[in-house]
Formats: sequence, C-alpha cells, structure tokens
Amino acid sequence: MTLNFIPMNLNAGLKGADINKCEDIHNLKDPNRKEVAEALGIVPATVFLIVSIIFQIFLQLDHEQQLQYNASLLSICFMTFLGFTDDVVELRWRYKLILPLIASFPLLFAYEGSTNLILPNFLSKIFNIKLIELGIIYKFYMSLLAIFCTNSINIYAGINGLEVGQSLIISLTIILYNLIEIILRDGNVEENLFSMSIMIPFFACSLGLFIHNKYPSKCFIGDTYCYFAGMSFACSGIHGHFSKTILLFFIPQILNFVFSIPQLIGIIPCPRHRLPKYDHKTRLLTGQKEHWNLLNVALRITGPMREQDICNVLIGFQIFCSAFAILVRFTLLRVI
Amino acid sequence: MTLNFIPMNLNAGLKGADINKCEDIHNLKDPNRKEVAEALGIVPATVFLIVSIIFQIFLQLDHEQQLQYNASLLSICFMTFLGFTDDVVELRWRYKLILPLIASFPLLFAYEGSTNLILPNFLSKIFNIKLIELGIIYKFYMSLLAIFCTNSINIYAGINGLEVGQSLIISLTIILYNLIEIILRDGNVEENLFSMSIMIPFFACSLGLFIHNKYPSKCFIGDTYCYFAGMSFACSGIHGHFSKTILLFFIPQILNFVFSIPQLIGIIPCPRHRLPKYDHKTRLLTGQKEHWNLLNVALRITGPMREQDICNVLIGFQIFCSAFAILVRFTLLRVI
Repeated sequence: MTLNFIPMNLNAGLKGADINKCEDIHNLKDPNRKEVAEALGIVPATVFLIVSIIFQIFLQLDHEQQLQYNASLLSICFMTFLGFTDDVVELRWRYKLILPLIASFPLLFAYEGSTNLILPNFLSKIFNIKLIELGIIYKFYMSLLAIFCTNSINIYAGINGLEVGQSLIISLTIILYNLIEIILRDGNVEENLFSMSIMIPFFACSLGLFIHNKYPSKCFIGDTYCYFAGMSFACSGIHGHFSKTILLFFIPQILNFVFSIPQLIGIIPCPRHRLPKYDHKTRLLTGQKEHWNLLNVALRITGPMREQDICNVLIGFQIFCSAFAILVRFTLLRVI
Repeated sequence: MTLNFIPMNLNAGLKGADINKCEDIHNLKDPNRKEVAEALGIVPATVFLIVSIIFQIFLQLDHEQQLQYNASLLSICFMTFLGFTDDVVELRWRYKLILPLIASFPLLFAYEGSTNLILPNFLSKIFNIKLIELGIIYKFYMSLLAIFCTNSINIYAGINGLEVGQSLIISLTIILYNLIEIILRDGNVEENLFSMSIMIPFFACSLGLFIHNKYPSKCFIGDTYCYFAGMSFACSGIHGHFSKTILLFFIPQILNFVFSIPQLIGIIPCPRHRLPKYDHKTRLLTGQKEHWNLLNVALRITGPMREQDICNVLIGFQIFCSAFAILVRFTLLRVI
C-alpha cells in the first residue's frame, strides 16, 4: 500500500510545478483556441522510474529477479525517452515500429520463462496435448506484443482523457488478474508479484495524470505517455508470464486496430488526425464515415455526443471488455 | 572492431537527417547570428543505447554480468532522458544534483565488487595495511562520483567542441587503461572487458558527434550529451572496478570545478554563462577576471586566442593530463 501512496504524493507535488514549466505548448484547435501543455506524459513516467528505482532497495530481489526488474525498467525508460524525443522532434512512422522493437530487446534477453504455449483445458482435451513448444517464435511474438502495446494505445486516442482512462482500466485489470492468480495458485506467485510491482506504481502515477488530462484537459500527454504505458504493460505481461492472456485485456484496442488497418496500410487515404466532426453550436461530436477507427464507429452507433460523454462510453466499454476477459480467462481458457 | 564501425555508420547516417529535423533551434549570439541545432546529444546517445542493447546478443554474458550491463544501460538511459528533458524544459539547479543521484542507484544496487580501498604499494608499506574496508561509505562515494562525472563535463564548456573533445580523450584514456590492465594481469580481466564494452561504442558515437560539433559548430550538444557522457564514464569506472583511478582521468575537470567553487556556492555572484569576452574585430577570445573557470584562467595565461586555438590548447592539456595520470597510476600508485 505504501507503494501506492508514495508515487501519488510525489506525483501531485511534482505535477503542479511541471505543467507551468513545460514549454512545449501545443495549439489546440478549439473555438476558444485554448493552449494546453503537451507531452506531460514525462511527469508520471519520470516519477514511475524514480519510484521503481528506489523501491529496488525494499523489494529484496535475487539476482535473476533483479536482472528482470532492471531490464524491464531499461525497456520502459528507453521507450519513454523515445516517446519524448518523438514529441519534440516528430519521428517518422517507420521509426515508431522499429524503436519499440529495439526497446523490447532487454526484456526478451532477460526473459527466463518457458516458451511453451499451454493449451486451455477444453482444447487440450480435444487435441490430447497440453503444451506446444514455440521457442524462438515465442520471443518473436513477445517483440510484436511490445510493438502492439505501445502503438495500439497511441492510435486509440483523439478525445480528452481517453488514452489515460483506458490505461488505468488495463492496469487495474492486470492487477485484478494477478490477485486472482495469487489466490488460486499456492506458491510460485513471484511472477505475479513482479507484475504487480510494475503495475501498482504505474496505476498510481497515471491516476495523477488522469486528474489533469480528463475533460476538459489541462494538459496533453503526448506520445511519451502512450509509449511509457504500452511498454509497462508489455513488461508486466511478459515477466508476469501471461503474455497471451494480456491480449484479452486489449480488446477495444484490437478492435480499433482492426478498424484502422485499411487506413494504416494505405488502402484508404489516411489523414493525420482521424477525429470526429465537432459542431461549434451544439458542442457535439459526430462520427465521420471516412475516419476508420473505434471512436468514429462508436459515435456513429450512439449518435452525436459531447466529448466527455463519448469518453465515458468508451471507458465503460473498456471496463465491460475487461470484466468479460477476466471471466473468459478463468472459465473457458482455464489452464490449471 | 565491428563494435567500432557499426555505431559510426549508423551515426553518420542518422545524423544528417536529424540535424535538419531537430526543431529545437538555439539562437547563437554570433555577429552572423547563425542558428545552430541544439541538444544533438540525443543522436549519439540513442545510437549508443541501440547498439549496446543489440550487442547483448553477441557478448554472451552470464546472469550477473547481464544484470550489471542492464543496470548500466538503465542508468545511462535514464540520465540521457533527464538531460534531454533538461534541454527541453530547463530544470532547476537542485534537480541537476538529485537526478544523477537517483540515476546512479541501479548502478549501485547491481554493484557486486569489493567495497575495499586497496592502498598503493608505497602507502601500504608505510602503514603496513593493504586494505581498508569502507562498506556503505564506498557506495556513497560512487554516487558522488556519478554526480561529479555528469556535472563536471557540463560546467567545463563554453566553446565549440570542448565537451565532446574532452569526452573523447577521457574515453580513449579509459580504453588505454583497460588495455594496459589486461596486459599486466593474467585472467580476471572480465571487468576490464566490461568497461571497454561501454567505452568503445561510446567513443565511436562521440566521434561522429565531434565531427559536427567541432569549430565551427554545426550543432550544439546540449545537456543531453554531457549527462550521457558523464554517466557512461561513471558506469565504466564503477563496473570496471576502478572508481578511484577514474578520478585521475578527470584532472582538468577537477581543476575547473575547484576554480568554479566560489561561484557555484554563491560567494561570488554567478552569471548564467561564464564565457570569455569575444572581440568582434579581431575574432579573439579574452579571459575574463570575474568568470572563475578553467577556460578563462587558460585564456588569461595564454593571452587572447581564437576559439578553435584555445579549444585545441585545452584538449592538448587534457591529453597531457591523461598521459600523466596513466603514468602515475602504473608507477607511483601501483597496487599489484
């Protein structure tokens, strides 16, 4: 619990100062033309790294765990650094795919877990095998996971508070998943504790950011936060040894990615920002047919909505998906 | 040798693009009012991190070495990230002392070497003891070393190419020191190889930057490079187990620090930039009495000089000090 409060306090203290200090002002296209500080993701990321580094003293890890912990922090730190660089100098698209791959390497080299695919009970009864050894393919999968996590949060965005909101729900889901695992399994819960030791400070730091980022945004989070969040999830999933299960917690992101594929690979022309249409008079957002993503699809299903309402709807959808994922994981996909 | 070429190639390729891309343009107060890109230290730092991460595959480290390697990279990465943040948002002075301390923690936690002070031969004969156990004091010393390394390079600056030039000489000296150690000692050279595995890519990446940063500068390096360089030296020295010897390679920096103390602690008022006086007509720099640092002291000894000449003089002095340090280390301060 102390783990939970310290970053929050630190966060609250640091944040007030940093918003005013951050000189990277982004021009928000608002009827009021409000100017909002950009790339504020560095605050929770830096606080997270400082807290995590200091907490090594209290965690009493053995060599192997310390290696995994440091490798995770290296991946997260490198990814955050790249995200911040991206916010400042605007990297090209191809780097956004290559750099998470390189940032995931320390994670993979330090990975000591199995590279088996354990089949869920119902499938193992059908095929009469329990394990499929994947070896190098599994490591390749983990790299892809890191790339997917970092970018999927980045592209599922566009309205105030959505990126941080979804990240909070995902991190809560991961914490809940680990708690259930710890209760169900006797012993050998180290990897679950490890995963939680990343997710609890992450949740606390993100909560501090969410207060300032939710509608109406007092700050923008930048790619910095998206990369930081994505790599934290990837680390938590990979070293917590649930790198398949974690995809279940990304259902809205996967849907958004699938909807976006035609524009991402260039079949349909892709504008820089695929935002819904904003009506100055009614202050409502309307989904646009030519912008293929979950935000616009949701708005076309619900009809025009205010920005804060559609954000709540989407976060509600994320919570629903997470509950569904937890349910499926511990019933249909049960492995123990 | 491959280790040497890959970062150089990568560096050359990346750099051309990044100078034009970097939007952080700093206004150089020149008669011609040239605008020069700032904070270009991110290029060698990023290349260094990418190369180092990928080279883990080929280094075949055991668990403990891998831990030290990852902890070193985490420290360097975190410090670079903070340096870049500093360049972008301008941190306060107190953070510049606290943040290297925190960034040095992963380094210290992963430190497995002795915490003894081995006395040089001539002293051990006098006092008739060979070892002094320092314990926690030694770890405290290593933190201070990290803070000193990062800041001493940052304050020994002011003319084109000086920061990168001195860093190149220091890294070459460390490589030379390690080579001599490897030749003198049979076996147990792992720590020297480890130290070199950080310094060789560092030297290569810095060389690429030096080409563009030497007089007349096509780019400025920012705090990013100074922090990156300082932490690389600290890592190299600490995990190479020569954290006392490394101070010998910082003689000009120590002199500069000692000269600067009155202004740093505020006995004498300290202006933001303590540069020598530039004469528009003769294009010569003259040392200023009220600016207490090595650059001004050197200029007052030599008399007015052109910027490139005084830079060469100071780098020459660095080379002289390094040769002196190597000589002293292997004669007077010999421990084996």
